[in-house]
Amino acid sequence: METLGYLAGILTTLAFVPQVLQIYRTKSAKDVSLAMFLIFTTGVGMWLIYGIKVKAFPVIAANAITLILSLVILFFKFKYRKTSL
Amino acid sequence: METLGYLAGILTTLAFVPQVLQIYRTKSAKDVSLAMFLIFTTGVGMWLIYGIKVKAFPVIAANAITLILSLVILFFKFKYRKTSL
Repeated sequence: METLGYLAGILTTLAFVPQVLQIYRTKSAKDVSLAMFLIFTTGVGMWLIYGIKVKAFPVIAANAITLILSLVILFFKFKYRKTSL
Repeated sequence: METLGYLAGILTTLAFVPQVLQIYRTKSAKDVSLAMFLIFTTGVGMWLIYGIKVKAFPVIAANAITLILSLVILFFKFKYRKTSL
């Protein structure tokens, strides 16, 4: 049972890597919703705090990585805004 | 403590709504990574199965909604592929 949870956590965390790479390669994030990543990053940040408070390492690890990836996407939205907004 | 988890779950679920609306409005999903949503949808599907097996309603509810939203985004990636790939 735990394996299923770990695998699901790994997939929903690493899923953001291809998005980071695509934006980096194309230098364009126009179709990527800024509102989505602002809300999502806030939510992931809260999951991280939650994980720290309940001392749940998998929740901490998954959400720390996802937070970094979604912050990079937000940074790219800003950096490539000429081709984005 | 539970409130923090619920709020985080609500944000990381509803975050996908603005992405769905933006693609629907612009009819373009070029910058949205297909690989990301294929991997993410698989992971969310596994979270849903996990939630059902451990009978955790919040996990079931959040991931059922996220699964629908990410499937809609995958459908839009296909539907608007002329402007996407």
